[in-house]
Amino acid sequence: MNFFTELFSSVFDRRYRKARSNEEDNRTVKAMCQDLLTRHGEVSGGALARNILDRYDQMSSDEKRELFEFMTHGLEVVTDEVITALTEYQKQPSKQTYKAFASACEPRRQELIRRFNQVPGATPKLVKMREDLLKATKEDASLGILDVDFNHLFTSWFNRGFLVLRPINWDSPASILEKIIAYEAVHAIDSWDDLRQRLKPSDRRCYGFFHPSMADDPLIFVEVALTKGTASSIQSLLTTDREIIEADEADTAVFYSISNCQPGLAGISFGNFLIKQVAANLARDLDNLNTFVTLSPIPGLAKWANSAGMGSLGKGKDQALAAYYLLNAKRPDGKPLDPVTRFHLGNGAMIQAVHADADVSSNGLKQSNGAMVNYLYDLTQVSKNHEQFVTEQKVVASDAVHALSASIATRKKGE
Amino acid sequence: MNFFTELFSSVFDRRYRKARSNEEDNRTVKAMCQDLLTRHGEVSGGALARNILDRYDQMSSDEKRELFEFMTHGLEVVTDEVITALTEYQKQPSKQTYKAFASACEPRRQELIRRFNQVPGATPKLVKMREDLLKATKEDASLGILDVDFNHLFTSWFNRGFLVLRPINWDSPASILEKIIAYEAVHAIDSWDDLRQRLKPSDRRCYGFFHPSMADDPLIFVEVALTKGTASSIQSLLTTDREIIEADEADTAVFYSISNCQPGLAGISFGNFLIKQVAANLARDLDNLNTFVTLSPIPGLAKWANSAGMGSLGKGKDQALAAYYLLNAKRPDGKPLDPVTRFHLGNGAMIQAVHADADVSSNGLKQSNGAMVNYLYDLTQVSKNHEQFVTEQKVVASDAVHALSASIATRKKGE
Amino acid sequence: MNFFTELFSSVFDRRYRKARSNEEDNRTVKAMCQDLLTRHGEVSGGALARNILDRYDQMSSDEKRELFEFMTHGLEVVTDEVITALTEYQKQPSKQTYKAFASACEPRRQELIRRFNQVPGATPKLVKMREDLLKATKEDASLGILDVDFNHLFTSWFNRGFLVLRPINWDSPASILEKIIAYEAVHAIDSWDDLRQRLKPSDRRCYGFFHPSMADDPLIFVEVALTKGTASSIQSLLTTDREIIEADEADTAVFYSISNCQPGLAGISFGNFLIKQVAANLARDLDNLNTFVTLSPIPGLAKWANSAGMGSLGKGKDQALAAYYLLNAKRPDGKPLDPVTRFHLGNGAMIQAVHADADVSSNGLKQSNGAMVNYLYDLTQVSKNHEQFVTEQKVVASDAVHALSASIATRKKGE
Amino acid sequence: MNFFTELFSSVFDRRYRKARSNEEDNRTVKAMCQDLLTRHGEVSGGALARNILDRYDQMSSDEKRELFEFMTHGLEVVTDEVITALTEYQKQPSKQTYKAFASACEPRRQELIRRFNQVPGATPKLVKMREDLLKATKEDASLGILDVDFNHLFTSWFNRGFLVLRPINWDSPASILEKIIAYEAVHAIDSWDDLRQRLKPSDRRCYGFFHPSMADDPLIFVEVALTKGTASSIQSLLTTDREIIEADEADTAVFYSISNCQPGLAGISFGNFLIKQVAANLARDLDNLNTFVTLSPIPGLAKWANSAGMGSLGKGKDQALAAYYLLNAKRPDGKPLDPVTRFHLGNGAMIQAVHADADVSSNGLKQSNGAMVNYLYDLTQVSKNHEQFVTEQKVVASDAVHALSASIATRKKGE
Repeated sequence: MNFFTELFSSVFDRRYRKARSNEEDNRTVKAMCQDLLTRHGEVSGGALARNILDRYDQMSSDEKRELFEFMTHGLEVVTDEVITALTEYQKQPSKQTYKAFASACEPRRQELIRRFNQVPGATPKLVKMREDLLKATKEDASLGILDVDFNHLFTSWFNRGFLVLRPINWDSPASILEKIIAYEAVHAIDSWDDLRQRLKPSDRRCYGFFHPSMADDPLIFVEVALTKGTASSIQSLLTTDREIIEADEADTAVFYSISNCQPGLAGISFGNFLIKQVAANLARDLDNLNTFVTLSPIPGLAKWANSAGMGSLGKGKDQALAAYYLLNAKRPDGKPLDPVTRFHLGNGAMIQAVHADADVSSNGLKQSNGAMVNYLYDLTQVSKNHEQFVTEQKVVASDAVHALSASIATRKKGE
Repeated sequence: MNFFTELFSSVFDRRYRKARSNEEDNRTVKAMCQDLLTRHGEVSGGALARNILDRYDQMSSDEKRELFEFMTHGLEVVTDEVITALTEYQKQPSKQTYKAFASACEPRRQELIRRFNQVPGATPKLVKMREDLLKATKEDASLGILDVDFNHLFTSWFNRGFLVLRPINWDSPASILEKIIAYEAVHAIDSWDDLRQRLKPSDRRCYGFFHPSMADDPLIFVEVALTKGTASSIQSLLTTDREIIEADEADTAVFYSISNCQPGLAGISFGNFLIKQVAANLARDLDNLNTFVTLSPIPGLAKWANSAGMGSLGKGKDQALAAYYLLNAKRPDGKPLDPVTRFHLGNGAMIQAVHADADVSSNGLKQSNGAMVNYLYDLTQVSKNHEQFVTEQKVVASDAVHALSASIATRKKGE
Repeated sequence: MNFFTELFSSVFDRRYRKARSNEEDNRTVKAMCQDLLTRHGEVSGGALARNILDRYDQMSSDEKRELFEFMTHGLEVVTDEVITALTEYQKQPSKQTYKAFASACEPRRQELIRRFNQVPGATPKLVKMREDLLKATKEDASLGILDVDFNHLFTSWFNRGFLVLRPINWDSPASILEKIIAYEAVHAIDSWDDLRQRLKPSDRRCYGFFHPSMADDPLIFVEVALTKGTASSIQSLLTTDREIIEADEADTAVFYSISNCQPGLAGISFGNFLIKQVAANLARDLDNLNTFVTLSPIPGLAKWANSAGMGSLGKGKDQALAAYYLLNAKRPDGKPLDPVTRFHLGNGAMIQAVHADADVSSNGLKQSNGAMVNYLYDLTQVSKNHEQFVTEQKVVASDAVHALSASIATRKKGE
Repeated sequence: MNFFTELFSSVFDRRYRKARSNEEDNRTVKAMCQDLLTRHGEVSGGALARNILDRYDQMSSDEKRELFEFMTHGLEVVTDEVITALTEYQKQPSKQTYKAFASACEPRRQELIRRFNQVPGATPKLVKMREDLLKATKEDASLGILDVDFNHLFTSWFNRGFLVLRPINWDSPASILEKIIAYEAVHAIDSWDDLRQRLKPSDRRCYGFFHPSMADDPLIFVEVALTKGTASSIQSLLTTDREIIEADEADTAVFYSISNCQPGLAGISFGNFLIKQVAANLARDLDNLNTFVTLSPIPGLAKWANSAGMGSLGKGKDQALAAYYLLNAKRPDGKPLDPVTRFHLGNGAMIQAVHADADVSSNGLKQSNGAMVNYLYDLTQVSKNHEQFVTEQKVVASDAVHALSASIATRKKGE
């Protein structure tokens, strides 16, 4: 029936657009935005907001940047209003004075974005708009101010409570699956045959978070292999020449790829929720599962080794060097240098094992000389690990990983 | 398949609750809220937030008021922080300084509510929480401050872009239909048979707005009769003894009842969108429809007539008095005294006709001596009417209504 | 989306009917049937078949009987053709000669019914037609011949492989639930509130078999109570004043009502499949369930007791008499006299227990002086019990039931 | 939720199979079939039938043929029984005697197939079984007898009234779409990109008939291009370099490919229904559509031309020769030689136009030197055309096609 819905909405849209085009709006987008903000209520705002979004679709990068600049600097917080409202609120705290203060603190650009979002179908367009904004911010840092507002609104709109976890499998619509092919960011999917290999066998799972207003476009997805024992190389998981097992024979779920899909949602964090929800669902469905572990890349290893003059230590198998890197390479703020490590330890995982020759693709060899790492999600330890990591920056790792790392320290001293 | 979903989530919940009860949390809810706000990220926050919501369910009114007071006064904006951040931002506008300012302006109670909402299924609980808050505010007006924050967040969460319009008919789930019976606020539904009369015939429609996180509970719904010509009494629409027509024979859609369902969403406006979206859908589906009109109560008529000493003028049929009231009775701010009038004129409708003996139920006789009114939604005039109403407070009405009203003015002068 | 489907099909139907009415068919239904059978292929047959079915809807009982008589006697097997074809087939067995024989054996009325069924939506109409036929057969036994053909086709069309088991619960469409109220044949459902009591609590289940061509009308349904221990009275199950338990706390599933919905499908057996499929589903979903048992009426007890002069033995509590009846009262063919007993023993159940005061409704008191019986479905014994029942007419019962029955035998001897 | 269903049924199946394997059935399939037929009712038959179908899956071609031979000759009609029952029925026509006769006429193999079909999921296996049977029949013509029974049952089971028309588009499950790629029999689909080209654009449609018991496997599907004017070559439809139009701008629907998917349903005709239902749906949805036409291959042209010594006449553009062939080349029974022509004329279409260079693929050049033909479905003429074709073998064609054909006749005479 999607078919009918689509058909009708397209018929309706077309009539609607036709009607609209008769009264072509010749004003600048800036003037239209000003107008939209002055509208009382939502009666005529809808058509105007849609007009603006349609115009936005046609804009060049420069025109977009101009709009962003207008939103940043032209719809700014008014200092005096804030001070006045705050003083008033302090003097006489009440619903009215607080409302006035809250209103004064919020720049009008936030209300503008909210009004854009009243148009059915606007949410994905606004996500795309922020993607454009993030690009523009690289050239004009002051636009970061506007991004604070987008981020604030998106955090509300994409609140965990609104996200829907859906399995993605070989019965999913092709229109979603082609996005999975496009979005896979860790181990590229070559073809529909490759995709089928990852979705159809009884020992493979894929889940994504979706937002109700973007129902055919995942926000993030994770690919899972159900295995006996923990996988130690990506090749063993992805080869077409492997023995497929029944899902309920598996004791381990290996999260081997997790991809964010929407650059416009950068900084809105879903991965943590996704991994835990998927682990919970799998545990519920498959009685024999008892281990939840990732098989993750180490994207910063080679770069760090070279810059730290440790390259020579990593010659041959760099498994020990990888352990050393994961445990000891830190950012100035004391957190792990590796972004993947930060993500999983921040979620409460621990470093369980490192493997040489685990990703022999050209990318894998380049970034980590083929090494990969298992992060273990022990659901009974996750909270504790997380607290220790956040408060004491403690990196929890297995004895084996500690031992490997120590061997490098020794060698280093020996140098 | 709802059945399975429900089954599983209940199984899962039970295990989960069991797990939790082993580590019973003995702190006060206030302490738990403080803790929730200090959690880094969302890792352990979920269980804690759920705990708090569960505890909330068990609270007495007094305990709830205490919590609201804590949220209002204990998680308040800190004036000095706002001033400092604002000064900093003025001095050096940047992403960082703006972020600091925005953060300082937002009281921590907002973040607390957002964290509550990360629990799956929390949204309806929070709507209920605000319902409680609105009650508590009647006794302690200062809690209105907290309501500003709820209102702010709900306006984002229940943004038009996130609402889903769904037909409600005799094939809808009984669990939703029993809510329609309970929520109908204008013309009470007596029984399931009465409900069937309003939903099943080919010339009846009902639509509601739903939010994806409250999928089995409508936010607002409207009941529509498809007729030949405009209906002039509610009795003629609701009698079981009427001729049922085919939908595509109708030329008029009569919106005869519109009910808000969630007291906790008071002030978040949906009705305007609902009427227009339903009108658009009906126009798309039924080629012969050309008139969209309400048959509405006049709830303030009798009360006003008595207080204004006009009661005697309305003796007998008060059709003219009703016209006079709709056009002339105003609030101090110049807007119509009647709330239903304010709503429909605010949406861009016009007053088309008034009818005596149109609602002879005891409630209808009591509130308006049986009079009702048709508000006409002429889609080509809606924007213009709305603008005139909002900017000039102009009340657009048909010549007939003006003439009726004038007759009262004459009589009044004659007195 | 049902809404759209329905809308369109109704629009389409109306246009279609309009088109058709222009070329009103003035022939007799008999002539139209003859014509339908001569059509080559299905090209123009569809409209004609629909015409006939529409005409059928308008017929009086007499006209229907006339049609049935035509189908029975006017579209009969032609003896000579059968003999010729059979001889030919014997002489030279081949695809062609067998096809000719099969065709000769099949009366043209079967093909007629099949052609009726090519009209979308015809299946429920044909089920209704057979219901009419069964009534007509009471007055004209020769129409039973036609019923053999209906039965033959329906057995194919309603083959177990085509049936879909669906849960029926408080989220089911009202249009289906009102049918449950109407169809419940064992313990009448008084009201929607009563229905909610049977469907909504966590320890209640209801399942029905549906056919894809009659998707909103169940063929048969069963009501189940999930309990701790076996229920011994219907009152304890249906009272609103009982403790509701969580489904996964239950150890027993009590099948307390099973109702056939379609008189037109009489003799096509679904109940056996339904009970076993539901038991399998419940066992899969609820780990603690280990007992599957009915709480069944004994519809023939009182009548038998009176006619057998046993009424006096049953004075007071007739629990023992019930046991005696179930074990000993037989039809001339040796099968149990009680139809419910025949059904459950035929399915492989055993008689586990009888209870006095178990159904104190007026109907329960009248038919069995309030006694009810538990039939136990022990899935490990079902095949064995069934074989013994069918081949040796052995009635399997618990020791307790045998003892009770023996006490009557003793008393009887004592008389 | 398909996911869950699948998951559970697979879990259930596995447990079930485990249970079964404990009681491995060592008998021959023939003995198991005999046993299945003697079972009283369906109680234990289900497991046995499933066992047989599982065994069948493992059989070699020879074993399958052996089974078919057993079903054909071992479960044959018994002549004496037929004669006796027929005599009895003649003597005393009644429900009982007719039932006995019907039962005697029906070989037990039919009941066996029906019992196979009681296993959930059996229907597609039986369709596959008939596919095997049709192959085996090529080597042993006597098996055609068994095929008569399969055909008889399948005609009932796949009755038009049970088929569901579903759109197939880019939102359809990949598991269905990969079947479309595999089944396309007219213009091969090279890749998923090619498929997307045929399904996603606004001016393309695809519909299939599905059976409820084979919900993820189409029985037949048709691909449609929405165009302005009638297409005269397949290249213009399939090129990626074409202007895409909005669906409601189209005046013509071109049915350019229709593929049967199930060899095991050979002889059960769906195409006629499909084309008309799709035409009706498109006409309902798209107001501007007024022409329904095919663009069809002429598979027998080249072969006929060579065998008829007409090859030389077709040199260069063979458009006229194609017209001549379509109008004049006949089978011994007087029907058109070309199977596609027989199909469309049998449906009531007419030959509207022939085109040279219309399919320049290697297959198109080989079979018809690149010529294609438009068959026009004029819904007002379809019944009349069909009747004339069936009763008088009249081939309805446009004047243009007649003229072209005549030119060949002239040239031929000239030779």
